[in-house]
Amino acid sequence: MAESWSFLDTVEPNFRPLVVIELAKGTKEETIEWFTKRIVDKKANGGAQLLVKPLGTENGEENIYLVGASHLRLLLGAETVGLVKECNDNSMRTFTYSSRKTFKDFADDNHNFLTIAECQYIIKHELENLRAKDEKMIPGYPQAKLYPGKSIVRRLLTNGILVQIFPLHDREELKKLRHSWYGRVKVGYQPLDEIRCYFGETIALYFGFLEYFTFALIPMAVIGIPYYVFAWEDYDKYVMFATFNLLWSTVILEVWKRICAIMTYRWGTLLMKRQFEEPRPGFHGVLGINPITGKEEPVYSSIKRQIRIYLVSLPFVCLCLYFSLYVMMIYFDLEQWALDYHEENESTFSNLMLFVPSIIYAVVIEIMNRIYRYAAEFLTSWENHRLESSYQNHLILKVLVFNFLNCFASLFYIAFVLFDMKLLRQSLATLLITSQIINQFAESVFPYWLQKRHKKRMKKRMYAMKTDTDLSLVEQVNLEKEMGTYFGTFDDYLELFLQFGYVSLFSCVYPLAAVFAVLNNITEIYSDALKMCRVYKRPFAEPTANIGVWQLAFETMSVISVVTNCILIGMSPQVNALFPDSKMDLMLTVALVEHLLLAIKFIMAFVIPDKPRDIQIKLAKLEFESLEALKQQQMKLAAESLKE
Amino acid sequence: MAESWSFLDTVEPNFRPLVVIELAKGTKEETIEWFTKRIVDKKANGGAQLLVKPLGTENGEENIYLVGASHLRLLLGAETVGLVKECNDNSMRTFTYSSRKTFKDFADDNHNFLTIAECQYIIKHELENLRAKDEKMIPGYPQAKLYPGKSIVRRLLTNGILVQIFPLHDREELKKLRHSWYGRVKVGYQPLDEIRCYFGETIALYFGFLEYFTFALIPMAVIGIPYYVFAWEDYDKYVMFATFNLLWSTVILEVWKRICAIMTYRWGTLLMKRQFEEPRPGFHGVLGINPITGKEEPVYSSIKRQIRIYLVSLPFVCLCLYFSLYVMMIYFDLEQWALDYHEENESTFSNLMLFVPSIIYAVVIEIMNRIYRYAAEFLTSWENHRLESSYQNHLILKVLVFNFLNCFASLFYIAFVLFDMKLLRQSLATLLITSQIINQFAESVFPYWLQKRHKKRMKKRMYAMKTDTDLSLVEQVNLEKEMGTYFGTFDDYLELFLQFGYVSLFSCVYPLAAVFAVLNNITEIYSDALKMCRVYKRPFAEPTANIGVWQLAFETMSVISVVTNCILIGMSPQVNALFPDSKMDLMLTVALVEHLLLAIKFIMAFVIPDKPRDIQIKLAKLEFESLEALKQQQMKLAAESLKE
Repeated sequence: MAESWSFLDTVEPNFRPLVVIELAKGTKEETIEWFTKRIVDKKANGGAQLLVKPLGTENGEENIYLVGASHLRLLLGAETVGLVKECNDNSMRTFTYSSRKTFKDFADDNHNFLTIAECQYIIKHELENLRAKDEKMIPGYPQAKLYPGKSIVRRLLTNGILVQIFPLHDREELKKLRHSWYGRVKVGYQPLDEIRCYFGETIALYFGFLEYFTFALIPMAVIGIPYYVFAWEDYDKYVMFATFNLLWSTVILEVWKRICAIMTYRWGTLLMKRQFEEPRPGFHGVLGINPITGKEEPVYSSIKRQIRIYLVSLPFVCLCLYFSLYVMMIYFDLEQWALDYHEENESTFSNLMLFVPSIIYAVVIEIMNRIYRYAAEFLTSWENHRLESSYQNHLILKVLVFNFLNCFASLFYIAFVLFDMKLLRQSLATLLITSQIINQFAESVFPYWLQKRHKKRMKKRMYAMKTDTDLSLVEQVNLEKEMGTYFGTFDDYLELFLQFGYVSLFSCVYPLAAVFAVLNNITEIYSDALKMCRVYKRPFAEPTANIGVWQLAFETMSVISVVTNCILIGMSPQVNALFPDSKMDLMLTVALVEHLLLAIKFIMAFVIPDKPRDIQIKLAKLEFESLEALKQQQMKLAAESLKE
Repeated sequence: MAESWSFLDTVEPNFRPLVVIELAKGTKEETIEWFTKRIVDKKANGGAQLLVKPLGTENGEENIYLVGASHLRLLLGAETVGLVKECNDNSMRTFTYSSRKTFKDFADDNHNFLTIAECQYIIKHELENLRAKDEKMIPGYPQAKLYPGKSIVRRLLTNGILVQIFPLHDREELKKLRHSWYGRVKVGYQPLDEIRCYFGETIALYFGFLEYFTFALIPMAVIGIPYYVFAWEDYDKYVMFATFNLLWSTVILEVWKRICAIMTYRWGTLLMKRQFEEPRPGFHGVLGINPITGKEEPVYSSIKRQIRIYLVSLPFVCLCLYFSLYVMMIYFDLEQWALDYHEENESTFSNLMLFVPSIIYAVVIEIMNRIYRYAAEFLTSWENHRLESSYQNHLILKVLVFNFLNCFASLFYIAFVLFDMKLLRQSLATLLITSQIINQFAESVFPYWLQKRHKKRMKKRMYAMKTDTDLSLVEQVNLEKEMGTYFGTFDDYLELFLQFGYVSLFSCVYPLAAVFAVLNNITEIYSDALKMCRVYKRPFAEPTANIGVWQLAFETMSVISVVTNCILIGMSPQVNALFPDSKMDLMLTVALVEHLLLAIKFIMAFVIPDKPRDIQIKLAKLEFESLEALKQQQMKLAAESLKE
């Protein structure tokens, strides 16, 4: 085995560990040898040409390996994954090794040209693209079958030989980031570029969206406060507030696209070419021929999947929705009971009792959401989607529908069946505030406490070993490998989505919702930052150009909120008083206004360009240049051919 | 001058004329010499390397030139414009000269590998891309300024030196096409592939859409007939018909996208890369630097254009809309007067008189539409759009809005202000049938008659010259250059769009509309075919991948029709009878149904994939291959770099 690392020793004496590989305890020696050999082997031999080092063999940690790469290797990897970087002339271009001199801040000895997050992403990409050649199985594990082109790391993962791969924190950088992010008390923007350098684009974009959304809610909150304080309930003021809200929510969603384009252009991800998507790790099927690549890989009939989706998942989701509605009805019975109780014996206790059903319901909703989430994940995984993106979309759809009903069904029922605006306001406030508190607690405070406790214990154990040599790396790896895994931005976006629903669906009834949302989001920024930096394992950076399906989800919510607000205004006694004679006229007016608002919404979404003009020009310029290059090439060829 | 053509004489003795260039009479000799020299000059010298031949110098036709190209030149041109052709393995690939052997039906002596339409498109593209080098002006015309990179042909056109460039008909091919298209009485599909070979993709796609649309209307027509014949006016049958119509119209628009993808994939245009768009010929401005290309070209401030659009065009359009509504009110006065007259003296004459206002109004609408069209073209041209596509979009928007109001305002007024269903039905029928008759006449029959007369006269003149030598080419060119120019598919699509409006907006009131639409479209196919083959100059082929903005227009119409139909059903006495006690419940039900239908529409549009699965796989395969090729290249480079 020493031979494999001799390559490393001669080439790069100052090895920088970037990624940690944890193998299962008791992995066979021959497997480890074969796997590490493949990692360090030359590209030409089908290896990844990375550097590998065991983490302190003397301490019985022989199942943990550190992976790094030479600077040159990383640059070539950056070209492979298609990173986009800024050039000397301030334009963004796809990095290629041959044109490296034209890039800003590039120097052969500048090891900060690629951010650590990028280096780790490159290593992850290279490891995942380490493919079987003619091996029929993983050496030492005959049950772990391989076929030419199968990703070795994925097979190791699915067979449990590989426990996990995760990037290491950089304690220096993390300290700096923590300081500028939430370390000092200050008013201002988050250091999004630094977050992006450390955690990658997906996470930076989430924090960017969270920040943007918070700022965007401030006008609604500011306008909402006097409505609450002075109890303005005049018709015209109400209508103005609701109209403002509806148009505002359209505007903020459109403007976000522009801001997102500006950010991702600066980060280079707007220009990154989509890589060809591999089957997701959990995908299984009989070996067949992929019609796209023409290569052998597991194939699963699309009809079977459709059957699973429409005959199992869909009925199950409907059943869950029904169950959720059933629970809602129980809640209303409880509510009625509490009201009766309060009327019978009026006391402070009975007054407090009035809030109990709402609180119980809010808690039950949270619990149901979490249970349903597991079921949805199981079902979507069982549907056996080939691509991670398709898996994610089906999961998001399932979870969104259920969460939407769960959170808003009772409010819809109160508003449009019971017509009880007072109860609606009260329920809205209770639901919003309870769910915010639960979320903040379950998401950050509790894991942080767990993590702290664990860290203390670890430290004690470490010191007990009394090894005074530089153990900090071993210590760090051991600490980090036990940390929880951050499963992506799904839950964070979902929380924002539901919050957006609370704020916009019934905004004209409870203008204070925006205020609570703003307050929550400010603490959310800090608690999420804490969570990222302290609680979870460092996640791999994921280049991304937009918030994807969430944009659509938010836009749909904004359309639904036009409908609900129009109905709410139509039902208000002030508006009803304006049409004393004819309910018909009232309804016609409301319907007309609703359709007008929807039309304005769609026209606005159509007219506001998704990208600012200067970004458009920069993109057009790049496209033009590539077309010109192609033309030049053809001209040359044409001139030669015509000469013959 | 003889020297310029010596190139031609030696290289290709059997010159095939493809495109005709008509210069202004009395164009200076030096200009002609310079221009033809540039056309035949080598690519390396900045020429187009095409072949040019004057059309019979002895007959005083020295201002007409024929342009052709060698087979090799055309193949290289096919690569430049990025034509996509079928390979031997049935996949579609961008044609390159170096990989020519891999393409189906390719042989060095097979001159039919490129269709004539493609050859003519290539020549047009090459001529338009003939650019000024260091000339400051067109020789002989000091007022016709040039700057490096300016398209020479465009400058010649705007200065009136070049009268027109048009492709020649191929009389053999045209005869064959005519025969299989409309020459024999038969039931069946149009020869779309042949149409595409002869007229190019844009026109073939229009005929494809027309045919598809006609077939798609048949179910609506078939279901509509018994409603008319048996005067079914029950509530449930009505609702069923309307619901069917609404969902059907969504389905046909979605399915069209799929059919369109199948066709354009087969034709190769689905895969064609968008070329960089040049400023349109009419665009003017001060010389500046284009931020995208970095080259010198006229620049016009976007703010000035916005001012022209919003401060002049928009108010003008609004004024026209107001005027159109005013005319409509006059029509209703006339209608009332005719009704009074009929009541006073009931006779066959007075009965006929009842139809007079509608017919007058239909004629007036047509006239107004045509006048407005000129105004819209003038205004849009004055707005000085840089790109042809942006010009077209603004023009289409202006014309669409006005035509929509002009055609449907009176129907909306009758339906939702007068609540007169009988009058609505009658007006709908009159408007639909009158406009169909006028269109067929104005579009095809009249120009055909004009063309016939002109041809006869030309023939007489030709025979009078008594030249018995093979004059057929001269004769043909002289005939064709006088033919009208086909200005694109705009009017044809507009007609279909308005027809779609008549059929769908009030479908539940007048189910017979679909029947008339089907009948009209069948004759429309033939009259349009006649128009293309007989009346107009052959148009240049334009590669296109879809029907563009019209898809959006049709979809918008289909959304509006959901709203109108729901209201119409809600107003029908049968439905009103179902809710005898409460108008409120009726309206709520109608509103609920409408929102449900709209939601179903959007979900359907979202769920039905725009491209069939096999096309998706083929596209993915191509993308995968190009990614693989890139990766291979990078791997090679990486291996080399790491070796060093």
